[in-house]
Amino acid sequence: MLSRQDNELLTRTDQDTAMGAYFRRFWQPVLLSRELAEPDGAPRRVQVMGESLLAFRDSSGRVGLVEPRCPHRGADLYFGRNGECGLRCVFHGWKFDVDGKCLETPTLPRESNFRDKVSIRAYPTREFGELVWAYMGPAAQMPELPHLEFALLPPAHRYVSKKLQECNWAQSVEGGIDTAHFSFLHMVVPQASADAERFMKGAAMGDQAVRNDRVRWVRDDPMPRFEVTQHAAGLLIGAARTADDDQLYWRITQFLVPNHSFAPAAFPGETHYGQTWVPISDTSCWIYTYSWNPDRPLTGQERAQFAAGHGVHAAVDASYVPLRNRSNEYLIDREEQRYRSYSGIQGVSEQDACIQDSQGLIHDRTREILGPTDLAIMRFRRLMLEGAKGLLDGREPPEAARPDAYTVRSGGWVAHRDKKLAEVMTERFGDPLGDANALYRDQALLRRAG
Amino acid sequence: MLSRQDNELLTRTDQDTAMGAYFRRFWQPVLLSRELAEPDGAPRRVQVMGESLLAFRDSSGRVGLVEPRCPHRGADLYFGRNGECGLRCVFHGWKFDVDGKCLETPTLPRESNFRDKVSIRAYPTREFGELVWAYMGPAAQMPELPHLEFALLPPAHRYVSKKLQECNWAQSVEGGIDTAHFSFLHMVVPQASADAERFMKGAAMGDQAVRNDRVRWVRDDPMPRFEVTQHAAGLLIGAARTADDDQLYWRITQFLVPNHSFAPAAFPGETHYGQTWVPISDTSCWIYTYSWNPDRPLTGQERAQFAAGHGVHAAVDASYVPLRNRSNEYLIDREEQRYRSYSGIQGVSEQDACIQDSQGLIHDRTREILGPTDLAIMRFRRLMLEGAKGLLDGREPPEAARPDAYTVRSGGWVAHRDKKLAEVMTERFGDPLGDANALYRDQALLRRAG
Amino acid sequence: MLSRQDNELLTRTDQDTAMGAYFRRFWQPVLLSRELAEPDGAPRRVQVMGESLLAFRDSSGRVGLVEPRCPHRGADLYFGRNGECGLRCVFHGWKFDVDGKCLETPTLPRESNFRDKVSIRAYPTREFGELVWAYMGPAAQMPELPHLEFALLPPAHRYVSKKLQECNWAQSVEGGIDTAHFSFLHMVVPQASADAERFMKGAAMGDQAVRNDRVRWVRDDPMPRFEVTQHAAGLLIGAARTADDDQLYWRITQFLVPNHSFAPAAFPGETHYGQTWVPISDTSCWIYTYSWNPDRPLTGQERAQFAAGHGVHAAVDASYVPLRNRSNEYLIDREEQRYRSYSGIQGVSEQDACIQDSQGLIHDRTREILGPTDLAIMRFRRLMLEGAKGLLDGREPPEAARPDAYTVRSGGWVAHRDKKLAEVMTERFGDPLGDANALYRDQALLRRAG
Repeated sequence: MLSRQDNELLTRTDQDTAMGAYFRRFWQPVLLSRELAEPDGAPRRVQVMGESLLAFRDSSGRVGLVEPRCPHRGADLYFGRNGECGLRCVFHGWKFDVDGKCLETPTLPRESNFRDKVSIRAYPTREFGELVWAYMGPAAQMPELPHLEFALLPPAHRYVSKKLQECNWAQSVEGGIDTAHFSFLHMVVPQASADAERFMKGAAMGDQAVRNDRVRWVRDDPMPRFEVTQHAAGLLIGAARTADDDQLYWRITQFLVPNHSFAPAAFPGETHYGQTWVPISDTSCWIYTYSWNPDRPLTGQERAQFAAGHGVHAAVDASYVPLRNRSNEYLIDREEQRYRSYSGIQGVSEQDACIQDSQGLIHDRTREILGPTDLAIMRFRRLMLEGAKGLLDGREPPEAARPDAYTVRSGGWVAHRDKKLAEVMTERFGDPLGDANALYRDQALLRRAG
Repeated sequence: MLSRQDNELLTRTDQDTAMGAYFRRFWQPVLLSRELAEPDGAPRRVQVMGESLLAFRDSSGRVGLVEPRCPHRGADLYFGRNGECGLRCVFHGWKFDVDGKCLETPTLPRESNFRDKVSIRAYPTREFGELVWAYMGPAAQMPELPHLEFALLPPAHRYVSKKLQECNWAQSVEGGIDTAHFSFLHMVVPQASADAERFMKGAAMGDQAVRNDRVRWVRDDPMPRFEVTQHAAGLLIGAARTADDDQLYWRITQFLVPNHSFAPAAFPGETHYGQTWVPISDTSCWIYTYSWNPDRPLTGQERAQFAAGHGVHAAVDASYVPLRNRSNEYLIDREEQRYRSYSGIQGVSEQDACIQDSQGLIHDRTREILGPTDLAIMRFRRLMLEGAKGLLDGREPPEAARPDAYTVRSGGWVAHRDKKLAEVMTERFGDPLGDANALYRDQALLRRAG
Repeated sequence: MLSRQDNELLTRTDQDTAMGAYFRRFWQPVLLSRELAEPDGAPRRVQVMGESLLAFRDSSGRVGLVEPRCPHRGADLYFGRNGECGLRCVFHGWKFDVDGKCLETPTLPRESNFRDKVSIRAYPTREFGELVWAYMGPAAQMPELPHLEFALLPPAHRYVSKKLQECNWAQSVEGGIDTAHFSFLHMVVPQASADAERFMKGAAMGDQAVRNDRVRWVRDDPMPRFEVTQHAAGLLIGAARTADDDQLYWRITQFLVPNHSFAPAAFPGETHYGQTWVPISDTSCWIYTYSWNPDRPLTGQERAQFAAGHGVHAAVDASYVPLRNRSNEYLIDREEQRYRSYSGIQGVSEQDACIQDSQGLIHDRTREILGPTDLAIMRFRRLMLEGAKGLLDGREPPEAARPDAYTVRSGGWVAHRDKKLAEVMTERFGDPLGDANALYRDQALLRRAG
C-alpha cells in the first residue's frame, strides 16, 4: 500500500515529474528497428513518456528522433520528405538532419545566417538488439547502453516484438515480477482435458514438451516463499514452491531498473524471455518483448510461434495492438473459463494484459491488502521510489553507470529445501546473482553489433 | 420553471447527492432476471446512479451485486470465475460470496485470519416480477419491495423488457406523465392514409383493434384539463379531453415515487403498461418496461409484438440499446413526417425517446414556459424536491414504508363532464385512487413468487 | 510571431470574444443554398462560430436561421414539422416562423396572449451566389452583403462548393494567402514523370493545358518578393518570382476582411477561385469555395471536375467532409511522395488542408520564425487584430460599410522587373487594386439575383 503521493510519484513519467526524470537517466527502447525498415522511408510518430516525437532513418541509415514541429510556421514534419540525409518540411522546404540541425531554409535569403541559429530538439539514438534506443536525459549524464543479454547475442539467437499495454507501466511491471499469480491466472482448471493441459503447460511453463511436474508444483502450492536480493542493476527475485522429496521448485525473476524484467521459467537449455515497459503516456505503454537462447539459434518454427503470440509475445495487429485487448474484453470465453482454463482468455500475454488493465488505467495503490507473496512488488516500489527521490535530491542513479550489471539471467530450478536463493543461483547459473558477463567478456565486438 | 439549484437537486442521483440519497431509500431494478440466466454464469457489469457494480448469480441461484474490485491488488472481479457459491478473482484466487464476504485467500498463510476482516461492498438484492432489485441505502431503513401489480401477477400475465434512454432520468419521467403530448407527438397527420391511422392507433391508443373515437378525441382536443391528486405512493394524474355528447375522455396516469409511472390508455380488459426509470448516470438511464393484463395471460403473439417494439416497449439490440436512437436520429423519415405521422419516427417508445433526449442530456428547467397542461410535471417536481429536501432534514420518505400503496391502476375512461377525477376513478377502478389491493389480499404467496 | 494574448484574440470567434464580435459585423455564409433544396424540406443543424442553430426553408422559400430550442419545454426543433410557413415543435405543437415569431401555442388557452410574448432567437438571412448568408451581429449595424464577383455573375458562370477544415480558421486563411508555399507543397519532384507533371500543373497552376513556364518559374524561385497594399476591403498581396528575360512572374492574391481570399493563378480568360472560411468552432471551419469565369459560362466538364475535387475544391463525401482528411492522414502515399509529388497527397485542396491541420488544432503563433516571404501573413494578422481591437474600442469596421470594395480580382501576370505592384495590377486588371465595379455598375439587378 502506498500513500497517494507515492502512488503518483511511482506512476507518472511525463517530462516534469520525478519518475520521468529518473527514467530519462536510462536509455529507452522507442521502436523496433524494423519499424524504420529502410533509409529514407516514411517517418514514424512516436510518443514516449508523454513526449510527441518523430523518428526517421536517413539516407545513411542513421535514426533521428526529433521534435516533429518545423520552427518556421509550425507544420508537422511527419508529412515531410525524407531524403538526401535529412527530413524536409513540405510547407516551405526547410530541412533538418537526425541531430536536429537545420540544413536548408530555401525561403530565406542566402545572406541570412538564420539557419545556423535554427534547430529542432533531437535525442541521441542507438540501435541495439534490433531495437532503436533513445536517451532523453541531460547530455552530461548520458550512460552506456545496458548490456542486456538478448542484445549481446547474434540475431539468430533472439526474437524481438512489441505490444501495446493499455494501462500505466508500473502495474504492468508488477504483474511481470509477480510470479505468485502463476498458480491461478495462467492455470488450467482441474477438470480440464488433457489437450487443454498440454497447451497451457507449453505456453506458461516452458517451451518444449509437457512438463507435468512443474505445472503440478505450481498448481499445488499457491503460496510461494519469496526471497529478494538487491544488486547493482536491480532486484533478484526468487519464489520457491514445494516440489517432491524435500525439494523446492524455484522460479526466479530479474528486475532491472528502471523498467526491464526477465521471466522465471527457463531451465538449462530452454529459451529465456524478457520484457521492457516504456511509457507512452501515464495510461499506456509499449512492452518490448524478447526471447533468446544463449545456447543455440532459434528455429523458424519458434519464430513463427512467437509472431503468432506465444509465451509473453502477444498476437498483435499491424500497429502492435494485441488482437485480444481491453476493447473486446480479451475475447474472454466463459465456457472456456468454466471448463478449461482459469481465465477463459487465450494466451499468457493476454491473460497478463487483462488482469493488469483491469486494475484501472492507473492502479490505486492506496487501497490494497498486500501479503507475503507480494514481497517482490513491495521491493520494486521501494527501489523505484528511492531512485526517483534520490535524483530529486541530486543523487544520480548508480545503476545507469553499470551497464555490465544488466548481463544477468533468470529461470527455474529444483533444489533441496534447505538451500538459500544465493546457493540455488550458483547451482543454476554459476553465480549467486545470475551474472553472465564471463560469457561475453571476449565478445566485446558483439556488444554493438545489434 | 426551476431555479438552477432545484434543477441540479432534481436531476443528480450520484452517491453524494440529495436526490441520490432519496432514491437509495427505495428498491431499484438493476437487471432483468434473464440477464443472469443461469447459476454460475458470466457476471454482468452494472452501473446504477453512478456506481460501478458487478452482478452475478451464484451456484444456488442467489444474485450478488458487489463492488467489482478485489481488495488484494485491485483486479476487476468481472473477469473472475463464478462457481461453487462465490466469485473468485483470477489474479490470485481470492473468493467472495453474494454478500461480499471473503471466503478464501489462497495466497495468505492459513494461520492468518485476514480474510475474516476482508470483504467487498455488497447490496441486498431480490427478484420480483422478473427483475433483479437492489437496495442501495442504509440497512436500518431497508423497506419492503413495492407491490407493483405487474410483479404480483403470475408470469404468464406479464411481459418485462428494458431499454436505454440517453438523457437524464427526470425529463424522461416527465415525458411519461405528460399525456398532453399525445395530441401531437404520437399522432398521425390529417392527410395520412387509413393504413397509417390504423398502425398509429394500435400503437398509441390501445392494443386491440382500431379505436376511432379515442384517436379523434385526442387529436381534436390538444388542451386536456389536468387534475392531480397526491396519495400515499405518489400522484394520481387525470387529463380530460372533450368527447361526444357532454362527455369527457379521461386518460389517467399514476406516478409512484421515486421513479415509476403507469400509462393512461387501458380500458377495462385491455393490457396495462408501466415504466421504471433507473439512472445509470446523470445523463442516461435504463427504462424497465412492463405490460400486464390482470384478467388473462398474454398471448404469444402479444409477447412477440412487445419483443419487436410495441407501445412503450422499444425495438432494441442485444445490449438493450434502441435500434432507433440518438446516434442515428431515431431513423427519422421526413417523407413519413410530411405525409403520415406527426414525428416521422416509428414507434411510440422511440418518439418519446427522441423528444426527451432532444431536451438535452440534462434538461435545463430554468428556461421554460409552463402552462396549464404542464400541471402534472410541476406536481412531480414539487413532490420529488420535497422528498429529497425532507430527507436532508431527516424526514424518511413515508412512501417507502407503504409497499401496498403501489398496488394501484391507471387507464382510460369516458364519463360525464360534470364528474370529478375521484368519481371517474371509482367508476373505472372501484376506488377513487385506483387501489387494487383488494384483489391481491388473498394471494400473499404470489407476492414473492417473482 | 504573436504574443499568447494576440494569438488567442486572433483565433477565437465564439460569442463572447473580440474577434467573434468583429466577425459578427459581417454577413457570413452558413449553408449552400442547395443544402435547403426545397420549401418545407428537412431542417438542417448548423453550427457557426460556436453557436448551435437550425436552418429551414419555409413554404414561401424564405430561409430561417433560429435557436433550435422550443421555449415551452426545451425540445429540439430539429425534429420539428416544417410546413405552412413555419416550424412546429412535435412535442406540443408550438409553431415559429423564419423570424422566430411564435405563431401558435395549441396547448395554451386561446385567451392567453402568451404567444405574443414568446419568440425564439433568429438571425436575418439572405441568399446570394447560391449561398445562404446570415448576419449575426447587432441589428443597428447590419451592412449590405459584400459584392463578391462570383455572386454578382449569372449562375452559369460560377460553381460553388464547401469542405470541412479540421483546424482553426485563421491558420487556414494564412495558408490561403501564403503563395510562397507553391514552390514546395504543390510541386512535382524533379524526377517525376511527364504524366505527374501534367496533372500537377493542371491542378495548381491554372486550369487548362500544360503551362511549363509558370511551373518552372515557381519551382526555380522559392523566394518570391512580396508587396502588400491595404485597400478599403482588405489587402492586395503580390508575390513576384524571377521569370525569363528580365521579367517577373507575379502571383497576386486578395484578402478581404474578415475571411475571404481569392487565388493567384488566373491569367486573362482563365477561371478564378476564391474561398471563405467560416468558423464552426475554434478548431474547425467550413470553407466555402467558388470558381467563376467572368468571360464565359463554365462547361459541364469543368463542373464535373470541381465536383470531383479540383484546384481548391476538395473531393468530399455527402456531409462535405473531405475524403482525404486528418483521420486518414490525407491518404498520403510515400511512394508518390518519393518519386512524383512533393507531398505524396493527391489534390491541391487536400495538400493545403493537410499542412494547415498539421500546424495543430489552433496554431501556436508564439513559436515561429517568420521571414520576408511571410509578409502577407504578418499583414493579415495585424489587420485582423486592429479590426477586432478597434471594435472593442468602439470603432465599427469601415470595410463592412463598403460592399463595393469587395468587387476586386486577383490572378497572375508577367511583367518587367522594374514595375511595381500597382503598375502590374493596372496592366492585368485595368485598376491598381483590381477593382471590377465598372463591369457591374449597370447590372445592379444581378446583385440580388443569387
